[in-house]
Amino acid sequence: MNDDRFHVYDTTLRDGAQQEGLNLTVTDKLAIARHLDDLGVGFIEGGWPGANPKDTEFFRLAQTELDLKYAQLAAFGATRRAGTKAADDPLVAALRESGAPVVTLVAKSHDRHVELALRTTLQENLAMIRDTVSHLRAEGQRVFLDAEHFFDGYKSNPAYALEVLRTAAEAGASVIALCDTNGGMLPDELAEVVHVATGTSARIGIHCHDDTGCAVANTLAAVKAGATHVQGCANGYGERSGNANLFTVVANLQLKRGFDLVPRESLADMTRIAHAITEVTNVTPNSHAPYVGVSAFAHKAGLHASAIKVDPNLYQHIDPAEVGNDMRMLVSDMAGRASVELKGRELGYELSAETSRELVNRVKEMESRGYTFEAADASFELLLRDTVAGERKRHFEVESWRVIVERTRGGELVSEATVKLYAKGERIVATGEGNGPVNAMDRAVRLGLERLYPELAEVELIDFKVRILEGTHGTDAVTRVLVTSSDATTEWSTVGVDENIIEASWQALEQAVTYGLLRAGHVAG
Amino acid sequence: MNDDRFHVYDTTLRDGAQQEGLNLTVTDKLAIARHLDDLGVGFIEGGWPGANPKDTEFFRLAQTELDLKYAQLAAFGATRRAGTKAADDPLVAALRESGAPVVTLVAKSHDRHVELALRTTLQENLAMIRDTVSHLRAEGQRVFLDAEHFFDGYKSNPAYALEVLRTAAEAGASVIALCDTNGGMLPDELAEVVHVATGTSARIGIHCHDDTGCAVANTLAAVKAGATHVQGCANGYGERSGNANLFTVVANLQLKRGFDLVPRESLADMTRIAHAITEVTNVTPNSHAPYVGVSAFAHKAGLHASAIKVDPNLYQHIDPAEVGNDMRMLVSDMAGRASVELKGRELGYELSAETSRELVNRVKEMESRGYTFEAADASFELLLRDTVAGERKRHFEVESWRVIVERTRGGELVSEATVKLYAKGERIVATGEGNGPVNAMDRAVRLGLERLYPELAEVELIDFKVRILEGTHGTDAVTRVLVTSSDATTEWSTVGVDENIIEASWQALEQAVTYGLLRAGHVAG
Repeated sequence: MNDDRFHVYDTTLRDGAQQEGLNLTVTDKLAIARHLDDLGVGFIEGGWPGANPKDTEFFRLAQTELDLKYAQLAAFGATRRAGTKAADDPLVAALRESGAPVVTLVAKSHDRHVELALRTTLQENLAMIRDTVSHLRAEGQRVFLDAEHFFDGYKSNPAYALEVLRTAAEAGASVIALCDTNGGMLPDELAEVVHVATGTSARIGIHCHDDTGCAVANTLAAVKAGATHVQGCANGYGERSGNANLFTVVANLQLKRGFDLVPRESLADMTRIAHAITEVTNVTPNSHAPYVGVSAFAHKAGLHASAIKVDPNLYQHIDPAEVGNDMRMLVSDMAGRASVELKGRELGYELSAETSRELVNRVKEMESRGYTFEAADASFELLLRDTVAGERKRHFEVESWRVIVERTRGGELVSEATVKLYAKGERIVATGEGNGPVNAMDRAVRLGLERLYPELAEVELIDFKVRILEGTHGTDAVTRVLVTSSDATTEWSTVGVDENIIEASWQALEQAVTYGLLRAGHVAG
Repeated sequence: MNDDRFHVYDTTLRDGAQQEGLNLTVTDKLAIARHLDDLGVGFIEGGWPGANPKDTEFFRLAQTELDLKYAQLAAFGATRRAGTKAADDPLVAALRESGAPVVTLVAKSHDRHVELALRTTLQENLAMIRDTVSHLRAEGQRVFLDAEHFFDGYKSNPAYALEVLRTAAEAGASVIALCDTNGGMLPDELAEVVHVATGTSARIGIHCHDDTGCAVANTLAAVKAGATHVQGCANGYGERSGNANLFTVVANLQLKRGFDLVPRESLADMTRIAHAITEVTNVTPNSHAPYVGVSAFAHKAGLHASAIKVDPNLYQHIDPAEVGNDMRMLVSDMAGRASVELKGRELGYELSAETSRELVNRVKEMESRGYTFEAADASFELLLRDTVAGERKRHFEVESWRVIVERTRGGELVSEATVKLYAKGERIVATGEGNGPVNAMDRAVRLGLERLYPELAEVELIDFKVRILEGTHGTDAVTRVLVTSSDATTEWSTVGVDENIIEASWQALEQAVTYGLLRAGHVAG
């Protein structure tokens, strides 16, 4: 919400994009901006127009293609060069012409950085700030200032660091964000410095990095010390260890400190938004992320399942629905009947006491052989359906399969799989090649079944994990394979276990395809 | 270090193992304990003997197989059941008989949990604590207490929560760890409660979870409020969003707060240790982890490259060498020249500067493709020998190989491998069967070579690990295979990497056999 009492300022598209391996197109940036606006942030920093052609293009397109409900765009840039005038600086002109209502200027506040990186005098740096801020203000933009390396600068030369803030405020900057650029601060020391910095006429903001694992706590400490503008990135993206995770910051402030930062119904959509952004960035979602991770409200403890049933709030710090997440019970070998029943209910089945008992016994027996259901929800659901139905119904039956991997005399590597199946009354023989045995099997099965089940074209194997489990009590080691698949809308995981890695992979693949067919609405023959 | 001024207490093997998808064997637990001891933690919580057969086995084996330099083992368990005697409780007996010098008892300190989960009275809960602590103390063990749900309990009923602490301290508990079991606390509020709790005779400890993204900061806040015992997990493993990352906590306290927690040279090995543990857990390392992540000191130099060259400390919050990390790490090259030279010396080679440089370059290039030498000493030694010798000499040459895995119409599973090799001037064709493709390849190679190299009869493949590595820079995912082999006296590990799991396994097997032949004194042809 663009509520001027408190600013939620996102810098995913600029500082977050510095993350190693993250590479956003202009279309990606527009998509992320829409997601952030859905969440209700007040400001979206779109990039550095003028310095980066992609960012110039982003601001140009934003004027026609972004219809923001809550957020204002901010253009990021530097103060004018030494020895020039802001009015004549082409990079300042690009900020002016970006069409963004807000410009965020980065300025040096650490004396050594002024000398070493900027190669100018401390006085000229102040002049650059004064000139650039007042010029942009006069041209009608709102100006925020990022005081770079502020905390290290304050340690090095406190008088000068504070002089930078005063200069910017007097020139008309309405926000001064104190940046822990190297990310080395701890909350107590940071809060003391923030407190000292609140003496100017400008609003104080905070910009933290996670190099000490304290970016979120540092942000909260700054707010307690007087900051009313918080910067951060979606999913904690950013250089090195990342920026402060803006989602965690917002959830903490709103749910635990009573701030009214984003609309309640947007907060209840945060988990979906966080995941939607990972789809754009193509960064694997952090399943352990606070509030929005898939594991964030997952409980393993079989012991306490009965108490969880009576009062879930004794075991979770907030109601996961407030951030659009869900409590999940993990089925593991510690699991008793209560957690299996809870899990069944989560999947939409009311299990009788007898069915629960039978299911627990099957889970325990299979887990003792190396299966794991906590990481394989789809396998658990198939097992549950079989237990409820009394027998396993199948979309297809397997007659046989064969996999050949060969390195030829010429050094060529060949992987080939042949499957022989029955489905809908037909016998099917199909052969697939791949970059490895599992890929070849996957292709063979889908090639064989796609004509009968065209929806399989949407199903994709997206992850494959292998674990060798030691044998116990004289048995051989077994291999456990976890396969994650997806269709257009969701993901599911299945598990196979065998001494033989290829057989284990086959089991997981077979279930993955079966589950995909169930999702597509096919009732098994 | 087991310095009683301040405790570093690791609970990776117990609370960390609650992480979704993490499943540790007894061998894994022993390996992790050795790594933690190398780091110099004071206490390693090994699990819950008596409640979990795997953990009972861990404590049994630990007595002969763990030779700890710094750490003491702690056995985790609950207070006795309601209405019984500690001396008669079989679970308490299992703690007594674990051989661990320390027992950490979990006790309820939240009134509602006593009633709902324990289903007993508040008074009986106190009696259970008093009886169990004093019984174990009388039997000669040191007793620590984990006050479960302490912070929520303090909110619900402060008098009772504090009464639990007093009871435990009076009964002889030497540490009382305050547990933010649901992980919902923020640092300021947590610190106030910790301060109140420091009034007993016991040392106060802190146990945090990361549900608000503040586990590390909460731990530091507790230390500032008087706690002198910190609990956490390697790499922040744990249920939901994880436990406090013990590595981040230790680095923050030691490097930024002047605590002397672990030996300086162990801290300088922290990055390697953190990664070695991920090899055991098979959890993808978090590249953004503070201090130890591969991205933690990765800079997008660009603008500031020359300033970074003049004074790198202006751009990093600590010297990365203090935690064994590296400023310039681009992909995953963990090796610097110094560590390669050290490693060479450990293996008995004095490397020239030029050879070291060449070896570092080869290691970096291979690690960028997914190899890892940290967990594959034998592969490193083979690479080192090749670099010293200028070319790779081989005991045998491979013409081709083929692996077939088949499930027949009758349901039989067959794995068969054929290898065609040259050794000592002979051409060898051999076929082996096995319980899986790798086992079949291993048998085929050894069958083919045993007549020429009879010592191979002693060499055995004892472990096999597979890891799927995500693709980087537009390449496909690759599979990394680690194979551990042994002969009569020692073990060695080798690594192979390829898109194709069978080819990766072959590479690791070929090196395993080569290394076995070198050990047996065979100079390569």
